[in-house]
Amino acid sequence: MIRVTIWNEFRFEKTNPQSAAVYPDGIHNELKRQLSPNEDFIITTATLDEPECGLTDDVLNNTDVLLWWAHGYSAEVPDEIVAKVCKRVREGMGFIPLHSSHVSKPFLALMGTSGRLIWREGDRERLWTVCPSHQIAQGIPAYVDIPEEEMYGENFGIPEPDKLVFIGWFAGGEVFRSGCCFLRDAGKIFYFQPGHETNPTYKIPEIVQIIANAIRWAYNPCANNYDVNCPHKEALEAKGE
Amino acid sequence: MIRVTIWNEFRFEKTNPQSAAVYPDGIHNELKRQLSPNEDFIITTATLDEPECGLTDDVLNNTDVLLWWAHGYSAEVPDEIVAKVCKRVREGMGFIPLHSSHVSKPFLALMGTSGRLIWREGDRERLWTVCPSHQIAQGIPAYVDIPEEEMYGENFGIPEPDKLVFIGWFAGGEVFRSGCCFLRDAGKIFYFQPGHETNPTYKIPEIVQIIANAIRWAYNPCANNYDVNCPHKEALEAKGE
Amino acid sequence: MIRVTIWNEFRFEKTNPQSAAVYPDGIHNELKRQLSPNEDFIITTATLDEPECGLTDDVLNNTDVLLWWAHGYSAEVPDEIVAKVCKRVREGMGFIPLHSSHVSKPFLALMGTSGRLIWREGDRERLWTVCPSHQIAQGIPAYVDIPEEEMYGENFGIPEPDKLVFIGWFAGGEVFRSGCCFLRDAGKIFYFQPGHETNPTYKIPEIVQIIANAIRWAYNPCANNYDVNCPHKEALEAKGE
Amino acid sequence: MIRVTIWNEFRFEKTNPQSAAVYPDGIHNELKRQLSPNEDFIITTATLDEPECGLTDDVLNNTDVLLWWAHGYSAEVPDEIVAKVCKRVREGMGFIPLHSSHVSKPFLALMGTSGRLIWREGDRERLWTVCPSHQIAQGIPAYVDIPEEEMYGENFGIPEPDKLVFIGWFAGGEVFRSGCCFLRDAGKIFYFQPGHETNPTYKIPEIVQIIANAIRWAYNPCANNYDVNCPHKEALEAKGE
Repeated sequence: MIRVTIWNEFRFEKTNPQSAAVYPDGIHNELKRQLSPNEDFIITTATLDEPECGLTDDVLNNTDVLLWWAHGYSAEVPDEIVAKVCKRVREGMGFIPLHSSHVSKPFLALMGTSGRLIWREGDRERLWTVCPSHQIAQGIPAYVDIPEEEMYGENFGIPEPDKLVFIGWFAGGEVFRSGCCFLRDAGKIFYFQPGHETNPTYKIPEIVQIIANAIRWAYNPCANNYDVNCPHKEALEAKGE
Repeated sequence: MIRVTIWNEFRFEKTNPQSAAVYPDGIHNELKRQLSPNEDFIITTATLDEPECGLTDDVLNNTDVLLWWAHGYSAEVPDEIVAKVCKRVREGMGFIPLHSSHVSKPFLALMGTSGRLIWREGDRERLWTVCPSHQIAQGIPAYVDIPEEEMYGENFGIPEPDKLVFIGWFAGGEVFRSGCCFLRDAGKIFYFQPGHETNPTYKIPEIVQIIANAIRWAYNPCANNYDVNCPHKEALEAKGE
Repeated sequence: MIRVTIWNEFRFEKTNPQSAAVYPDGIHNELKRQLSPNEDFIITTATLDEPECGLTDDVLNNTDVLLWWAHGYSAEVPDEIVAKVCKRVREGMGFIPLHSSHVSKPFLALMGTSGRLIWREGDRERLWTVCPSHQIAQGIPAYVDIPEEEMYGENFGIPEPDKLVFIGWFAGGEVFRSGCCFLRDAGKIFYFQPGHETNPTYKIPEIVQIIANAIRWAYNPCANNYDVNCPHKEALEAKGE
Repeated sequence: MIRVTIWNEFRFEKTNPQSAAVYPDGIHNELKRQLSPNEDFIITTATLDEPECGLTDDVLNNTDVLLWWAHGYSAEVPDEIVAKVCKRVREGMGFIPLHSSHVSKPFLALMGTSGRLIWREGDRERLWTVCPSHQIAQGIPAYVDIPEEEMYGENFGIPEPDKLVFIGWFAGGEVFRSGCCFLRDAGKIFYFQPGHETNPTYKIPEIVQIIANAIRWAYNPCANNYDVNCPHKEALEAKGE
């Protein structure tokens, strides 16, 4: 069983009628509902306005894979919580930053880059699979059409991904590295671009399948299986002269 | 000075009136003309119908960077010549396969993959820079419009590039990893997709600039500076017990 | 269930008394015995002197992961069989070249590089885990001592690995990238250096565990799940003017 | 001309007699002296105890490549200065963290990982070139012996390097990825392990040559040549229906 925690800002859904119309009980609850048929997942949620952003030590220590949806309120997450999330990722917790989490504090801290991009609301996307043999693309066709989606375009300020799985084509004329894998110590990270708060992207079966695949990929039972962060006082060899 | 050899099939320009209209003396001569203002290049050309495909030992041994344009006649290049080209690449000769060279024998032999893709004539491309700080992107804007170009689309059967520099957006709805860097032993390789034989792509200044940048990037003065392909009979250390 | 085929030259074990003493019924049978407790594997073997090198179409089409042990007789494998093996790898068959398979024809054809290295018989190795969170390192300690092993040393003529999992330290003073992951189309490849024919390396439990882990990692149920190697005659979009 | 700034903690050389004996006027001045024959470098120095750690806006804005030597006092560099350094790296300033800078704040902030390793004073190293065709290895032999050096060993908590150039072998029995290239936005980074404060490593000609090569490699005249960190209000295409 994989213990999944879905974190969401959960602000737009309460203040923006367009967002509320699409996700009346929040993106986190929609994702939980969509992912719930996967019987190997135990899913909980956490949001920005809960105490400690819903990410207590107990929650983090019992999370195998953390989904993170953010768009407008990344600055409100305290640095102390960001540090705890990053530490858990390095120890082996999977991390799946969604959509505007490209400027969330944990993603930027784990990447070391700017996360810069270009953007425009009100576009249409076609998501192309560029690594069809990857576990995250399992069962996904050559492309997935997303009828309404915010445009995110290159240049995207990220390190070269360990593996690029999806590239987005936008009707307005741009492209984007929309699905990217990274490893940070024992933590497997998959950034995934689709999912604007006013578009019903997380109701598209192929998008849900990609996220489910990514959860299984990011789950690392191996994790940090030994600690070598220490002096090695005794040499393994006599060193001769 | 960088000694550049531009290899071209030079068949379509003699048999296809549309191609002849755009490149009357061949793609190789157009590229030579366009690149000639670069005073650090010494440029020669070679074509399929010359003896030994124009790629004698003398030519190859005096080439620092080899450009390769192919589309329809890759099967006619003898395996023996392909082996010589690949050997020179491994020794440090730069290699820039253009357009349909994704299925040329040397490119496939150096990649180990299928080179598969999807294609369609008669499209329009916008080439996006995804690594603006790369030497090959120096002086290139955020995107370059190519008014007429053959569509090449994902999934492209290549190994994960060491560095992805450009992604192509096509008006017909596809995307492509259009500019990709690879290293094979001492040989620096840059695959670059634009350049269909009936489109005047190689007359676009930014496209020529990218190719000139790629030549400088692929030139490896370091090359294969020592040979370690041999037994090491004497251990460097006494090995204890 | 994962269908594993272990291919072995099986020559040294019949001609070299030192090798016969360690592996009386061949390296392939020793590996089969060692791996047989893994109940998710269905293991068969094939050797160089069988008809078609034991690699008939039927065998290859029913192999999920192919282990390949070679040292002195790589040149005897017909090119036609090499081409079939590489095609199956590109379609998604896992491939685990062991020890001197660094100069086997299929490995070189899939890498595109020289495979060069330095070597010396009669050394001692310590294999260090550099990516402890990788699936192939699951359950493996910080290092594994191999009391007798042939030295393989840098510079190793391979493309930059997608992921480097192990580095070998040799008592004689050298280092080697001993465990390397690559992807070629849908084929997952793990090169693993230990296993000289006169040393009982394949009887060391941690080495067997690494190979078992690598088999599970290289098995790709996703494989080549759609074919896009074809023209895309109809554009997905109207292309405007 | 490349404007190089060498930053050093410059504490051990004032407090540890062994370090003072080797580097009486500090590691930064030794490196400056050793690198000064390179006529394309304009070299200045900065140290921890200068105002603003010697890294004023003026210094940073006029630095093309920053060397960073740290061992024991990383915590004393204010976060505000770390943020400025990282911003300049992302904008294209080269960055060469030396030796124990693996736990310096700027390196960790740019990597996103733990930087963990194992260590032991008083060892002997042999540095192997694993990418001899790389610009940083130009003119460097197959290996460089370092008679006295602190052991740094795997597992090293870094992201997979874009290119691994050197691996260290230690007489005590360990290995280390000692020379690693990374890119963060426009900033080229080369981590280089040798250089303990009590060992005369920076007086070894090959080590100095590697650092000089790394400075030329890390210098990025292309840098951040356009700014796309902004909304793209106007679509480039009419999007049809």
